[in-house]
Amino acid sequence: MADTPDIRERVVERAKRCHAAARFLAYSTTDQRNRALLRAAELLRERTADLLAANAVDMDRGAEKGLSSAMLDRLKLSDKRIEEMAVACEEVAALDDPIGDVLEEWTRPNGLRIQKVRVPLGVVGIIFESRPNVTIDAASLCLKAGNACLLRGGSEAISSNIALAAIMAEACRDAGLPDGTVEILDFTDREAVGVMSRLDEYLSLIVPRGGAGLVRAVSENASVPVLKHERGLTQMYIDETCDLAMAVSLVHNAKVQRPGVCNAVENLFVHEGNVPALQAVVTDLQEAGVEIRGDLRTCELNSGCVCATDEDFDTEYLDLILAVRVVESMDEALDLIARHSSGLTEAIITDNEENAERFLREVDSACVYWNASTRFTDGGQFGFGAEIGISTAKIHARGPMAVRELTIYKYVCRGDGQVRT
Amino acid sequence: MADTPDIRERVVERAKRCHAAARFLAYSTTDQRNRALLRAAELLRERTADLLAANAVDMDRGAEKGLSSAMLDRLKLSDKRIEEMAVACEEVAALDDPIGDVLEEWTRPNGLRIQKVRVPLGVVGIIFESRPNVTIDAASLCLKAGNACLLRGGSEAISSNIALAAIMAEACRDAGLPDGTVEILDFTDREAVGVMSRLDEYLSLIVPRGGAGLVRAVSENASVPVLKHERGLTQMYIDETCDLAMAVSLVHNAKVQRPGVCNAVENLFVHEGNVPALQAVVTDLQEAGVEIRGDLRTCELNSGCVCATDEDFDTEYLDLILAVRVVESMDEALDLIARHSSGLTEAIITDNEENAERFLREVDSACVYWNASTRFTDGGQFGFGAEIGISTAKIHARGPMAVRELTIYKYVCRGDGQVRT
Repeated sequence: MADTPDIRERVVERAKRCHAAARFLAYSTTDQRNRALLRAAELLRERTADLLAANAVDMDRGAEKGLSSAMLDRLKLSDKRIEEMAVACEEVAALDDPIGDVLEEWTRPNGLRIQKVRVPLGVVGIIFESRPNVTIDAASLCLKAGNACLLRGGSEAISSNIALAAIMAEACRDAGLPDGTVEILDFTDREAVGVMSRLDEYLSLIVPRGGAGLVRAVSENASVPVLKHERGLTQMYIDETCDLAMAVSLVHNAKVQRPGVCNAVENLFVHEGNVPALQAVVTDLQEAGVEIRGDLRTCELNSGCVCATDEDFDTEYLDLILAVRVVESMDEALDLIARHSSGLTEAIITDNEENAERFLREVDSACVYWNASTRFTDGGQFGFGAEIGISTAKIHARGPMAVRELTIYKYVCRGDGQVRT
Repeated sequence: MADTPDIRERVVERAKRCHAAARFLAYSTTDQRNRALLRAAELLRERTADLLAANAVDMDRGAEKGLSSAMLDRLKLSDKRIEEMAVACEEVAALDDPIGDVLEEWTRPNGLRIQKVRVPLGVVGIIFESRPNVTIDAASLCLKAGNACLLRGGSEAISSNIALAAIMAEACRDAGLPDGTVEILDFTDREAVGVMSRLDEYLSLIVPRGGAGLVRAVSENASVPVLKHERGLTQMYIDETCDLAMAVSLVHNAKVQRPGVCNAVENLFVHEGNVPALQAVVTDLQEAGVEIRGDLRTCELNSGCVCATDEDFDTEYLDLILAVRVVESMDEALDLIARHSSGLTEAIITDNEENAERFLREVDSACVYWNASTRFTDGGQFGFGAEIGISTAKIHARGPMAVRELTIYKYVCRGDGQVRT
């Protein structure tokens, strides 16, 4: 596929600036990077009026284009939202700096001393959709980890994103960090996404943040590694015996607290010996307005359920709908979980420790839980301080990704004349 | 690009078998996997005659096709080479099992206990060229790390590779591991490489082992992550002051000991204040038959040098040729190293600790050395016991890759009813 030369040139120009900056950023000091983050917080507060003016341009354009009120709300900046961004920068500054950590060290029989040292990735591309705060979140996490970043936001938020990225860039300059530390594509041509994803000469990694369509657009024909969150078909299993009230509370939280996210439960399997739990959970969920799509047994044992199709157990509803199935054994549950899993989050509810440990061992997902809500699959909830995204990949990083997941290592080897024989 | 349905079907069938096996392999015991490796060693010895017969078919076909004697030598099995494979299996069995290692653990304020546990990747695809021993090396390392593997060897070695893979598969069966643990593509259609590289539904990772052409064929349009070794333009810098004899010995080892490999030095930069080292190194190398392609200063200071072009400093010779340039300062050397680097291996030779530490910090390569030969960039030399390849990627794994680099982690979370509020 041929790129339009002009678009390609403009993307490459910015990627090159990032690449040049990354060389120096890699050995910038913790203090420099934190000063840039704190300066960004200051500038966000000082420039609130300018940011609101830039955002007004996006809002007017959005209203003209007939964006939904939900979309316009996501797009809108306010004093409060700008203050939240400033606080987020301060929080990232307060996180531990992972760069330079010695992960391991050893000495070879010939006396060569080897250290495995944590270093930045280089240049990280972030491609995201409408909410402008991602500009600040993404840039601040990349900066904390010593990476330059090339940002590409949604076209609806272009004025806001440019203004926010300019603040990050100015803060970096004020802290003595190189130009190119934070770059943004200041034009909206769709083709730029494809161009970015093929610049493996300059970019180490791309993290797409958005829906399935965005992720596909970024991944297709990418030569840069893409760490993506493809889908989150979260599943729970209620074992033969468990604390009944706990089962109700955990499934309720996993389904109802925020149904539109990747760690909300979509499939529930219940051991046939635990009808009381099945009935208590279903009743509770129905009272909360959840539609239950059950297999035959579930529908027999509970009123008001809809008959589930095969497809239901492969559907990420992101809504107040739950697919429920009764199983004869934990083996059957494990088979079903393996068959339908997206590899992100699964949980067992049981008071049987042996079964719990078997589940935790045998289920291959980024996050597996025993007696806890699946909603904890989140960088903040894990204590990572912030989150750049959730990965359903199997290499580099799995599950919640934060600062450390934006790093890699190098081997530093000190000798006194060793040669290979 | 459309795949030929029949080829696609045959690759998918084997990938599915691997994928099914991987689920069970992930929680197989250390003992099971080691028993399979030791049984493979036994079988290799028992079946030596059969293996030599299978190899004879490849050798005859190779001779008919007019393969060079070097190619035929790489292809050839012998009692000695089969014994070496058996020993390699025993050595991999003796390595520590990384699976199940708790990398970190912590408890959240709400009491949720989180462990980061090392687990296998799943299914690893290995696409390699003519030497049949890669079948055993790759399969044994994947097996050690709890991964199923889908092998695709070069067409010249197809009979040998099928026979070797059958031994690995039989050993796995004998140890109670699932069918599909080791699968090989037993047909030579080139299209299969492209099909494999797009099976992200089943494969977690592909490691290509071969030349630039192979790596390109695997990476192009791949949807499976590819950890590749693109090139190794290894560079050394001789600082203003250093031990003269050490400089001669290190550069000699890095260039002459085995010039055809990725950690052999290709570019040498020498501080203009260290003419004695420059002259001693060049004289030594010329005596060893190395062609010196020097900049103007190098040619003025040494007789018998060829004038270097710009291109020389971007060329991976893999031969007894070295590009040499005199620099005015360490800053200039660092700039040149950054410009020409392939990001794999660079070294400084100096007795100035401050300069050495600066070099180790500022040069962003997988392996950076102070006063040691660049030839140590190798899994065996690092003490990893074996090597599946060398990565020039910036994510997941950098530099020598062995058993641990074929693993990832999952988060195991134990609660007592925690919900998200």
